[in-house]
Amino acid sequence: MHRALALAAQAIGLTDPNPRVGCVILAADGSELGAGHTQPAGQAHAEIMALRDAAARGHDVRGATAILTLEPCSHHGRTPPCCDALIGAGIARVVVAVEDPNPLVAGQGLARLRAAGIAVELADAAAAETSRELNIGFFSRMRRGRPFVRLKSAISLDGRTALPDGRSQWITGEAARIDGHAWRKRAGAVLTGIGTVLADDPRLDVRLVPTARQPLRLILDPRGRLPASARILQAPGEARVIGPGRAHLPALLDDLGAQGINELHVEAGPVLSGAFLDAGLVDELLIYQAPVLIGDGLPLASLGALAALADARHWRLVDAVPVGDDLRLRLRPA
Amino acid sequence: MHRALALAAQAIGLTDPNPRVGCVILAADGSELGAGHTQPAGQAHAEIMALRDAAARGHDVRGATAILTLEPCSHHGRTPPCCDALIGAGIARVVVAVEDPNPLVAGQGLARLRAAGIAVELADAAAAETSRELNIGFFSRMRRGRPFVRLKSAISLDGRTALPDGRSQWITGEAARIDGHAWRKRAGAVLTGIGTVLADDPRLDVRLVPTARQPLRLILDPRGRLPASARILQAPGEARVIGPGRAHLPALLDDLGAQGINELHVEAGPVLSGAFLDAGLVDELLIYQAPVLIGDGLPLASLGALAALADARHWRLVDAVPVGDDLRLRLRPA
Repeated sequence: MHRALALAAQAIGLTDPNPRVGCVILAADGSELGAGHTQPAGQAHAEIMALRDAAARGHDVRGATAILTLEPCSHHGRTPPCCDALIGAGIARVVVAVEDPNPLVAGQGLARLRAAGIAVELADAAAAETSRELNIGFFSRMRRGRPFVRLKSAISLDGRTALPDGRSQWITGEAARIDGHAWRKRAGAVLTGIGTVLADDPRLDVRLVPTARQPLRLILDPRGRLPASARILQAPGEARVIGPGRAHLPALLDDLGAQGINELHVEAGPVLSGAFLDAGLVDELLIYQAPVLIGDGLPLASLGALAALADARHWRLVDAVPVGDDLRLRLRPA
Repeated sequence: MHRALALAAQAIGLTDPNPRVGCVILAADGSELGAGHTQPAGQAHAEIMALRDAAARGHDVRGATAILTLEPCSHHGRTPPCCDALIGAGIARVVVAVEDPNPLVAGQGLARLRAAGIAVELADAAAAETSRELNIGFFSRMRRGRPFVRLKSAISLDGRTALPDGRSQWITGEAARIDGHAWRKRAGAVLTGIGTVLADDPRLDVRLVPTARQPLRLILDPRGRLPASARILQAPGEARVIGPGRAHLPALLDDLGAQGINELHVEAGPVLSGAFLDAGLVDELLIYQAPVLIGDGLPLASLGALAALADARHWRLVDAVPVGDDLRLRLRPA
């Protein structure tokens, strides 16, 4: 399963809107017959890739075990059901990390395998957790109809994102910026506000880590102030302006979900960040904290005033990892 | 040496202004003959405690090895030199974690042991580092004539220490407050400003962890505004007001060093914290970061304006440790 999860992780930046899935086919003696991960949407899923790999290596998979990081699909999408391929290939046993949250699958894949006489087992809770985390946006979209929203910020120890005049390049170091691009790469779309475009003219593409595709770039520009010369419009990949009357955030998230965006990466200034936070629409804070004190400066988010400390929204620290000289914090709603 | 360092750690809150030292006496077969740590100032040092312990257990220490976390003293202070006690007891070999930074000792203890025919070895770098960290304030006072200054703050993710009206109880959780008392306990003195006393009326004593003594409490009150009813004056232990004309921080630190303060624990509001930081007098930031966003509120420190981000003073993250729901960060000047 460890190998299957590692394969699934290789599918980041490749398979959206489809989930990141890995598959390993093992002989009775534990030797690997074939392996693979999901390909870009419309192309082969992990199971098919692993079966093809076994065939290319001249292996007979009849009676073999398939290790899968996600329940195989049982429906006809852009490709035929993987269940049928496993059954047809004579696989005898399937070990699955987690059930598919897709209502079109949701246990039916496993039921179909069992009905065909295949032994089906669920792996341990750690494997399920890793697979779910890999596909946290896919799970969000399947279950809630909207993307998993990750709000990224680079701040000082004293919570400043920029000097009072807006200068923010750079608070954090090169390693943190590279790591930030790896998180952008996970996203189906990167969202910013017109304020950030006018102040920093960022590209917001993925360029510090290799990627097979660029996330969609979205600019919230309710008053039509975006200059045609903005670099965000010129970087590789698609950029889209969300203009007047379309800035209602919950509706925007529903729209993005309907468009197959699994993870939405928000890199914005204090106003837009504050709007997401005040609306309770942030699923994860991704904060790069630089070991500097800035004093006066811009805040992470402009938030509504608190009547009391007890009213502050609480977060749960997922992890705190040194990245270069900075500290990367991930937090989710408590 | 591991055991000797653990004994030395037990001397925290006990031996100031003397260093925290542990001693273990081992037979040739590695069995323990005696062990001990430094007692309150004027009482026995670790070596004497270990020799007494061995005698009480009926062991002959002639030919034995003494494991020491700090070079034994060679001078007559309030107690006779420990070197002479080790020599007199017939110890054959001494292993020391680190040399004493005290100019009255500084290698002379080891030289005296060698002159008496005792084999002297230094332990590994990790043991030296652990012993130095245990005595970081003692090393600071011996080498610089002033205490090691630790500035403690409890902040939100967005760097706020309080709501705009000053309410700060509580940003962090119970576990962080207990941990904060353990750091207070290490200190020879706890310093705050009159602003904090007037706003919060804190006691600033050590009460959430057991301690044999209370650190001296210091209140910087340059305009004589401290009310006689302040709780900081009534808590157990000594409190002292630093009044008009005595608030020059470098001179204050020299004074405190001369008075035997090894570690100074600063828990203050943004003005005094900012003064320490702007003057470059903070040796360690001890920050409890709560997983909340507050928005408008008071900053960790009021700092002079930066002309550019590159001018921000850089810190080095020593460690980031979850404490309850909060994250404890320790940083030192980079």
